[in-house]
Amino acid sequence: MTQPKSPPHLSRTDATFSAPIVTSRRWIEGVSFPAGRPLINLSQAAPVEAPPESLRQAMAEYLLSTPQAHLYGPVLGMPELREELAAEIATRYDGSVGAAQVAITSGCNQAFAAAMAALTGEGDEVILPTPWYFNHKMWLDMSGVRAVPLPTDAAMLPDPDQAAALITPRTRAIVLITPNNPSGAEYPGGLVRAFYELAKSRGLKLIVDETYRDFDSREGRPHDLFSDPDWDRTFIHLYSFSKAYRLTGHRVGAMVTAPELLLGVEKFIDTVTICPSQIGQFAALTGIRTLGDWVRGERDEILARRDALAEGFGRLANLGWKLKGLGAYFAYVEHPFAEDAQSLAQRLVHDASLLTLPASMFVPQGDPTGARHLRLAFANTDSAGLAEVIDRLAALPV
Amino acid sequence: MTQPKSPPHLSRTDATFSAPIVTSRRWIEGVSFPAGRPLINLSQAAPVEAPPESLRQAMAEYLLSTPQAHLYGPVLGMPELREELAAEIATRYDGSVGAAQVAITSGCNQAFAAAMAALTGEGDEVILPTPWYFNHKMWLDMSGVRAVPLPTDAAMLPDPDQAAALITPRTRAIVLITPNNPSGAEYPGGLVRAFYELAKSRGLKLIVDETYRDFDSREGRPHDLFSDPDWDRTFIHLYSFSKAYRLTGHRVGAMVTAPELLLGVEKFIDTVTICPSQIGQFAALTGIRTLGDWVRGERDEILARRDALAEGFGRLANLGWKLKGLGAYFAYVEHPFAEDAQSLAQRLVHDASLLTLPASMFVPQGDPTGARHLRLAFANTDSAGLAEVIDRLAALPV
Repeated sequence: MTQPKSPPHLSRTDATFSAPIVTSRRWIEGVSFPAGRPLINLSQAAPVEAPPESLRQAMAEYLLSTPQAHLYGPVLGMPELREELAAEIATRYDGSVGAAQVAITSGCNQAFAAAMAALTGEGDEVILPTPWYFNHKMWLDMSGVRAVPLPTDAAMLPDPDQAAALITPRTRAIVLITPNNPSGAEYPGGLVRAFYELAKSRGLKLIVDETYRDFDSREGRPHDLFSDPDWDRTFIHLYSFSKAYRLTGHRVGAMVTAPELLLGVEKFIDTVTICPSQIGQFAALTGIRTLGDWVRGERDEILARRDALAEGFGRLANLGWKLKGLGAYFAYVEHPFAEDAQSLAQRLVHDASLLTLPASMFVPQGDPTGARHLRLAFANTDSAGLAEVIDRLAALPV
Repeated sequence: MTQPKSPPHLSRTDATFSAPIVTSRRWIEGVSFPAGRPLINLSQAAPVEAPPESLRQAMAEYLLSTPQAHLYGPVLGMPELREELAAEIATRYDGSVGAAQVAITSGCNQAFAAAMAALTGEGDEVILPTPWYFNHKMWLDMSGVRAVPLPTDAAMLPDPDQAAALITPRTRAIVLITPNNPSGAEYPGGLVRAFYELAKSRGLKLIVDETYRDFDSREGRPHDLFSDPDWDRTFIHLYSFSKAYRLTGHRVGAMVTAPELLLGVEKFIDTVTICPSQIGQFAALTGIRTLGDWVRGERDEILARRDALAEGFGRLANLGWKLKGLGAYFAYVEHPFAEDAQSLAQRLVHDASLLTLPASMFVPQGDPTGARHLRLAFANTDSAGLAEVIDRLAALPV
């Protein structure tokens, strides 16, 4: 018997691209910025200040007083936090959610990865509106799952009928992000519902990543899915505590769905990280219990920054800049230059001390929109800083 | 054109078994133990007490004083910790290691998962000595990688010649764990070297998980691989800060290998967890810098418990119990009963208030040794508790 020839070898990480945030960090390594024009970093959606004093005090106390703060906890998370998040969601969305439907994860990226591991196998397909969130695409690449792109319209919204046409026997799920990363678009509740009905009718899961939920500009619940008596047979809700309470360094997110699906999720989390950080979970729990008003204040501030940025782009319109999407932490903008966005983003580091991400990091290879757009994570820059961003863009030689 | 029929669907988590620790926790749910015979939990290798006061104080201080404690850090970890661990390993192993060869991970399980993602693709093979560590096997199942079992001998040691015979064109790596989980065996330095030479000569990676390194009963370095000038082309060292400093609830581990391989690891970590917990990394850094003597004291205590257990099993020998492996946190024992280990382990919960894991959780399906052995994670039980364990086993009706 002759040995079969081995195929050309590609590892899971060979099958995907370098992390955009890491790539963009390398663009600024060793660069010295003019004293009068320091770097403004609009690359990563991440708080830049510590959580409020009261939360830090409670966390310090917990580390000192509670041995369990330092020891393994349950794979799917701290029971009190699962309970509290379920209650919080039930109230916010006027729906029915129990602790058994909640898993706490090491950040929302892990929630997505775990959901995919529980739903898909090699060669399956998942539909992602484009521009997509790069870590979703990376995880699908590493999982051997085909990311099926669903282009969005001028308002950066996907169309359920177009999605329906992309479904094949290998499709397992449709993924939405609202408010959206990278476009900022806030998906109308009716649109989310239409995707839910589509997924339900075709036996698929609808995953909705609501990481930026707390900064939605609209009042009231963003969708009504949690009101359906059997929502958990179709709907997978993803959430992050990182942005609301400034806990990015503690890695705490959540997935909310059917307990049966969480059995698969439990295998994945047990194998990859065993359990989420205990102090991070305690901080999230304390946040839900005590920081509601504080988060609403944060939202007001971010909405004010959003207005400032919208106004600023009004001033840039005559230079050919177009604001295509704005919400959550993000502005998605079309630039007026002949060069592609990848080269422009690197030029902006040197010519304007601005770090932004080119849309090529958010679209399939060869998609021409990637060359024309930038993502600006504006939310961590105050209104004065955003005015400065606009001035620097206005001053760029065309 | 007719649509091709979809294959029966299996997700990545469907492709593996339930986490043994979770399964065993369910055996004790709702069980009430006699007042005079409380549960002794020998299932999970995990500290049960908080880290020393000085470390907890330093951590609390850090949370209060340093905003960065709460914010994203570099994907591959805190630069000071990478530096410090590199220096510590260089000293301990009398070798040459630099910070660029170190990645910090969210626990040692994630280090293994990340290494596999960077090395393997669907259908590849990895050689694991049996009994294996269940989370290694679970991750390979979920990754579509075939775990090729390499049975160990009477001393619980694998044979490099036998391993050589298992290598195919799809083999990517050989994985060793020393001191071993689950058998406790401390692999002789010469044996580790022989596996390294085999891997090197065949263009494979040798992964050595040294999670329990700090509790090795031998003096001096456990192997000499770090002394080779080009060790990082073949060798991948995995480590955990969890056991040494009692930080299981903070999720901090490490991988040490070639910087080129860490580029793939970086993609994986960025996508799954973005970065390790900052406070966990600070604790690990403080641990290396200040707790060397304390860890040596912990080791002395664990070695004393190990002696107590060995003596105890001497007393059980005439009842047919056999101690097959002993080291790290573990005893691997052959039981004298007709029933299989799975049913015995569940009976021990009720008849002896002991939680242990059956060897069936550590071997391939159908391997008869799985029915005959138990793993006892003894290290968290003091000598009095271990004497009680022996008494309870001795009192079991045969």
